[in-house]
Amino acid sequence: MDFPNTTQIALRQDGPWLHLTLNRPESRNAMSRQMVEELLGVADALESRRDIRGVIIRGAGGHFCAGGDIKDMAEARAKAATEGLPAWQRFNRVFGTLLQRYDALPQVTIAVLEGAVMGGGFGLACISDVAIAHQDAQFAMPETSLGILPAQIAPFVVNRIGFTQARRLTLLGSRISGSEARDLGLVHFAEASAEAIDARLADVLKQLRRCAPNANANTKRLLHLTRQIPLTQALDEAAVMFSQAVTGAEGSEGTLAFVQKRPATWAAD
Amino acid sequence: MDFPNTTQIALRQDGPWLHLTLNRPESRNAMSRQMVEELLGVADALESRRDIRGVIIRGAGGHFCAGGDIKDMAEARAKAATEGLPAWQRFNRVFGTLLQRYDALPQVTIAVLEGAVMGGGFGLACISDVAIAHQDAQFAMPETSLGILPAQIAPFVVNRIGFTQARRLTLLGSRISGSEARDLGLVHFAEASAEAIDARLADVLKQLRRCAPNANANTKRLLHLTRQIPLTQALDEAAVMFSQAVTGAEGSEGTLAFVQKRPATWAAD
Amino acid sequence: MDFPNTTQIALRQDGPWLHLTLNRPESRNAMSRQMVEELLGVADALESRRDIRGVIIRGAGGHFCAGGDIKDMAEARAKAATEGLPAWQRFNRVFGTLLQRYDALPQVTIAVLEGAVMGGGFGLACISDVAIAHQDAQFAMPETSLGILPAQIAPFVVNRIGFTQARRLTLLGSRISGSEARDLGLVHFAEASAEAIDARLADVLKQLRRCAPNANANTKRLLHLTRQIPLTQALDEAAVMFSQAVTGAEGSEGTLAFVQKRPATWAAD
Repeated sequence: MDFPNTTQIALRQDGPWLHLTLNRPESRNAMSRQMVEELLGVADALESRRDIRGVIIRGAGGHFCAGGDIKDMAEARAKAATEGLPAWQRFNRVFGTLLQRYDALPQVTIAVLEGAVMGGGFGLACISDVAIAHQDAQFAMPETSLGILPAQIAPFVVNRIGFTQARRLTLLGSRISGSEARDLGLVHFAEASAEAIDARLADVLKQLRRCAPNANANTKRLLHLTRQIPLTQALDEAAVMFSQAVTGAEGSEGTLAFVQKRPATWAAD
Repeated sequence: MDFPNTTQIALRQDGPWLHLTLNRPESRNAMSRQMVEELLGVADALESRRDIRGVIIRGAGGHFCAGGDIKDMAEARAKAATEGLPAWQRFNRVFGTLLQRYDALPQVTIAVLEGAVMGGGFGLACISDVAIAHQDAQFAMPETSLGILPAQIAPFVVNRIGFTQARRLTLLGSRISGSEARDLGLVHFAEASAEAIDARLADVLKQLRRCAPNANANTKRLLHLTRQIPLTQALDEAAVMFSQAVTGAEGSEGTLAFVQKRPATWAAD
Repeated sequence: MDFPNTTQIALRQDGPWLHLTLNRPESRNAMSRQMVEELLGVADALESRRDIRGVIIRGAGGHFCAGGDIKDMAEARAKAATEGLPAWQRFNRVFGTLLQRYDALPQVTIAVLEGAVMGGGFGLACISDVAIAHQDAQFAMPETSLGILPAQIAPFVVNRIGFTQARRLTLLGSRISGSEARDLGLVHFAEASAEAIDARLADVLKQLRRCAPNANANTKRLLHLTRQIPLTQALDEAAVMFSQAVTGAEGSEGTLAFVQKRPATWAAD
């Protein structure tokens, strides 16, 4: 399945990597409804595009994403005037769907987080497999200072950094730096410069290339499963997944390559 | 609803803030049954007192709370001699109820943690929305060294710092400092002096004032919900809460204030 | 119940402590099926051996455990050729059973982690009550680089360090040091030398000696319960456990020793 045509995000494929750039720099990549629809279209494609092994998500113009779009809010308000609360519910819920879809992509997702990482941008940071921040990036959930809630974001924040940190950040609207975000476990790396971010990203992709794509997709699925079902059941399911992996094409090639002391096919440059 | 008359805790209202001080300095604010009853009475009032937006909980005389009260234990032992195990069960369970009630208060709770933060005091620290410790405060759960269990506390400790840290601290009875407590995510801030604690508290209250009270209460409710129901259901519920917030008084005022570049009514000094 | 005779692990009892050493230094203590069976036999004994209060788990020859055994994999492959996928499922699942059993031992388990802590060794580190690493130990889950999954390990890794760190480490196969493992909360201590590890272990055992054995076993059971049942139910159960502890032999002795300002019987050297 081909990627859709998009205007608010930019797509660039580089071998097994898809570079996905939020591309509304004039509004610090505020997440418009149009952008959400385009991201959902990309997710549709990614679910079948197993030639893509990693997705690098970042923002154009020095910011990741400044949150929701104010103009959209005004339009939604007009629409809700006639349609009532359900219009607002749909408006809000679609963003949770977006986070659920990207959280569960078969690819490994890598977020590069610079400048503003606010509201919806904060939520998007929370569902990446690997998060690399600039140490001076600014993370915040300012929703309750506007009289509204970080509604679709909050559950992903709790999953990401735990209840204790989530309650402080959501209830005070505190702004934290990339370094603090690393200390809280929100991101994995905080880097001092754009060059250091590039070097870190290159290293992450180098490591990722060594890992078999289907094994990774299934491991990611297993990690999600682990959070949803009791431990014994997860272990039973894991044993089934292991038996399929070890007897499948990747398991055979991986074992053989190991014995022959050569890189596996998926690891070759 | 007015606050009850209390003798073992001191209450002082300062605008939207309630200062609640555990006030038995002669026993390092050991948590007597009387104190527990008074705290429950305050919780009854707080649940209806939406003019109060934040509750600052601390101890008198340089300690937060040294744990359970030894005299109460002796009385309970006498009572249990005639009434049997159920008397002990009630004695113990009420403290869990206290923690559940304070964990879920509609207000934002801020714990200031100095000196001894032991046993029940440790539990109380674990349910605050924001925790500010002195770097030299002493945190411990010494229960198993007395042949008993940190029974009502343990579940809140697991929720607070995770299973891995909880097993070490409960099974060794280890004493940790405020700085270590921050590194474990038990508290959000560890400060070097009483002055630094005051400055941190002032900054927290300044941030809190900017956040709309009902939006905060609902966000806190959503965070709790997130831990109790599956993700998809939490997101559906969050969308309903969002629709109510955005169309309610706070949501209207917050958006308007943002457009008009002025503080919202709740944020004005 | 006596401990079984073992050839791939070494056992040494020292008063209330059992020293359990993975003992295949020629293969960096790779976890063979034989070793798994021996460890399960030791668990059978430990569940009835309440004279043992702590179990110290380490590896012989400077490494903890380098993961699964390659020869076993070859044998399993041969067997599965005739028996099909269920043979692989049993092969894999038994390791999860081992982790479940050791996670739930009534004794406090202390892992000493040096050199390679890979694959299955990483899993074993994740179920210890107290983990002491050499700062230069090497932790990794390289499974997906071999085309297979960290199947039985993944759920314990999520429980240990959370979803966010688990997804990075499993999907990149990243190697981290003992110091990084401490920063992620995978281990409790990272030490600079073998001497510092010995000193830390001695201090942990000194603290552990002060804690009553049955109170500790029941607290550990309660911590596990907390993760499996809703909070209110866990608190009800905790109150029952408290009533039994406080009226039992340890609770009586502990209170008396406290009043008499002497060490409790279990704390005496």
